[in-house]
Amino acid sequence: MRAAPSQEEVRRQNLGALLRYLHRHGAMSRAELTAKLGLNRSTIGALTADLAAASLVTEEAGRPAAAAGRSGRAGRPSLVVTPRSDAAYAYAASVEADRVRAARVGLGGVLLDRREAPRDAVAGEPASVAAGFVAELHGAAPRDVRCIGAGVAGVDTGVARAALTSVLPEGIPVVAGTVSDLAAVAEHARGAAAGCDNVIYLYGATGVTAGIIMDGRRFSGAGGAAGAVGHMVVNPGGHACACGARGCWETEVGEQALLRAAGRSGAGREAVRAVVDAADRGDARARDAVRQVGGWLGLGVANLVNIFNPDLVIFGEALRDIYLVAAASVRSRLNSIALGPNLSRLRLRTPALGDDAPMIGAAELAFEALLADPLDGRT
Amino acid sequence: MRAAPSQEEVRRQNLGALLRYLHRHGAMSRAELTAKLGLNRSTIGALTADLAAASLVTEEAGRPAAAAGRSGRAGRPSLVVTPRSDAAYAYAASVEADRVRAARVGLGGVLLDRREAPRDAVAGEPASVAAGFVAELHGAAPRDVRCIGAGVAGVDTGVARAALTSVLPEGIPVVAGTVSDLAAVAEHARGAAAGCDNVIYLYGATGVTAGIIMDGRRFSGAGGAAGAVGHMVVNPGGHACACGARGCWETEVGEQALLRAAGRSGAGREAVRAVVDAADRGDARARDAVRQVGGWLGLGVANLVNIFNPDLVIFGEALRDIYLVAAASVRSRLNSIALGPNLSRLRLRTPALGDDAPMIGAAELAFEALLADPLDGRT
Repeated sequence: MRAAPSQEEVRRQNLGALLRYLHRHGAMSRAELTAKLGLNRSTIGALTADLAAASLVTEEAGRPAAAAGRSGRAGRPSLVVTPRSDAAYAYAASVEADRVRAARVGLGGVLLDRREAPRDAVAGEPASVAAGFVAELHGAAPRDVRCIGAGVAGVDTGVARAALTSVLPEGIPVVAGTVSDLAAVAEHARGAAAGCDNVIYLYGATGVTAGIIMDGRRFSGAGGAAGAVGHMVVNPGGHACACGARGCWETEVGEQALLRAAGRSGAGREAVRAVVDAADRGDARARDAVRQVGGWLGLGVANLVNIFNPDLVIFGEALRDIYLVAAASVRSRLNSIALGPNLSRLRLRTPALGDDAPMIGAAELAFEALLADPLDGRT
Repeated sequence: MRAAPSQEEVRRQNLGALLRYLHRHGAMSRAELTAKLGLNRSTIGALTADLAAASLVTEEAGRPAAAAGRSGRAGRPSLVVTPRSDAAYAYAASVEADRVRAARVGLGGVLLDRREAPRDAVAGEPASVAAGFVAELHGAAPRDVRCIGAGVAGVDTGVARAALTSVLPEGIPVVAGTVSDLAAVAEHARGAAAGCDNVIYLYGATGVTAGIIMDGRRFSGAGGAAGAVGHMVVNPGGHACACGARGCWETEVGEQALLRAAGRSGAGREAVRAVVDAADRGDARARDAVRQVGGWLGLGVANLVNIFNPDLVIFGEALRDIYLVAAASVRSRLNSIALGPNLSRLRLRTPALGDDAPMIGAAELAFEALLADPLDGRT
């Protein structure tokens, strides 16, 4: 119902569209940008000049490496526009159950500096550890380069956001999202889901949550609590869940479910990998456990496929390890439950960005404000 | 990633925003439109003049009935802009399991003419019956008024669309959506979900499907098959479903589940109402049946609430009748499963538009093209 934008808003939208394209896809010739963005040459020229004046891109004659051989046309080479990873950066952090990561990420998605540690190798709360890493990165960062802001992925987004805010100078905006939401954002922006508009990213560790991209947009619900797929009840007579209910999906597919089925104790990603490795080596009990969890995994995915009709489901973290060895069980159960039209476009994948996905998504979130309005109030 | 619109596109967007507002909310003064749309007075004046020239609105001095008493200010009354329901209309039809409806709907959502019959009172396939109704409406429609197109809600959208296309003159576009999707669209546009951006409309008859509005937009999945919530498996050891799987939600909450639990035979809405009425009168077996189905209804809704974090769930068709008598069982099970943050904004409702919702949504769908570009290529 909102009215259309004014001319000045149109210019800002176009600047944002152009910079977003370069941020996602890297250096590109003006000719390619003209084609990709559907704007005419003179408009692209004016917009790139504006972005260059704001020190956000460089322009030089020549062909970007990525375009080599793409065009057979002779003639004057088009100017190549490159996003300046040295001119603007964001901090990104990810506070996960068993690991903490942080990075300084330049425009264009370039990892300029990073810190990482397994959860049990460092003292203190995970969010404080992440904040400590960001403080270190900030201490080592050049003073004369523009810091856009910071993004953080966490199970508790409020705590994660507060921790980062406390170590950064006032005025640096800190944004936060859930680990699974931001993993989905990252895979959609530059990973396995690039070009897919309907994506479910399953982040499975102790619990299972989903990052949801629908019609090309991150979906997080009326209050930011969407994606609690681990608490979809699939087995009302089953195991008690930590949430107080019985038979939640995560009681059948989480780390503890696999270890329980394999008759093992312990916890964490390494314990999951040990079962998966044993199954790979032919250990009968481990194989049964993997098959059983794979079946439940397929059942829950089938439910989500019936509900969302996605074109891609990505298995992240511990679910990645389980999926890789239990793919046949997952597919078999999935195919027996999901409806034909809902299955017809579906692909199942593991993350292209590996375990860095939530951190990369946090950087994407931090860059959003710049990409929405590259000149940020400046004309 | 799309670039921003041109000036001419901006004008069309503004014309669309203005006409959409009037279509949804009815007659309104220029002053109110200026405030609601965030455009200045001269722009609103130019846009309404364009729409009046295209015979889509009228302008006259005075106050719209709806605004009476809203403003205490004295002075020159603002011109009132009224959408012309006599100048443009769409056909709308709904092909449901037990009923067929069709209507001619004027701009502004005015029902100008209608036909309706229970499924078993008419011979022929439901889609053909709907097409026959539309042919009748078309025969009685004035020749000199602009027909925008036709919309149809159906379980099988392809069949429904083909049936309507066959009885209308060439050149009249026919669009289709599922019954649950279009019921959700209607309740969101002018019903119980007006102003809510995250809505699940549960359409329950023999099966259960969901119309999903997320972040203000209809969501239908990568291939239009989203919302098959009736085939979410919630009881793997339960009843066989017509789809071939076991323990689908609709085997526990559909019409047959209620009749089975109540120890009755039969089918259809009347049979459901008979059980609900018996429960209301204190019949013990009917009360147990309603309580049991209500519990399963609450469980499935809890799953959807954990997944979507909606602000509104609407119980439509047979689920409306069941919900009204089983609300306590639904709420109790829902509260025991759904997570706190997911429940905090949730309201449960019955449809404000009653059983007409899918047909009204079909009309909204048909009007979309006009509202996106009111002058339709004409300048």
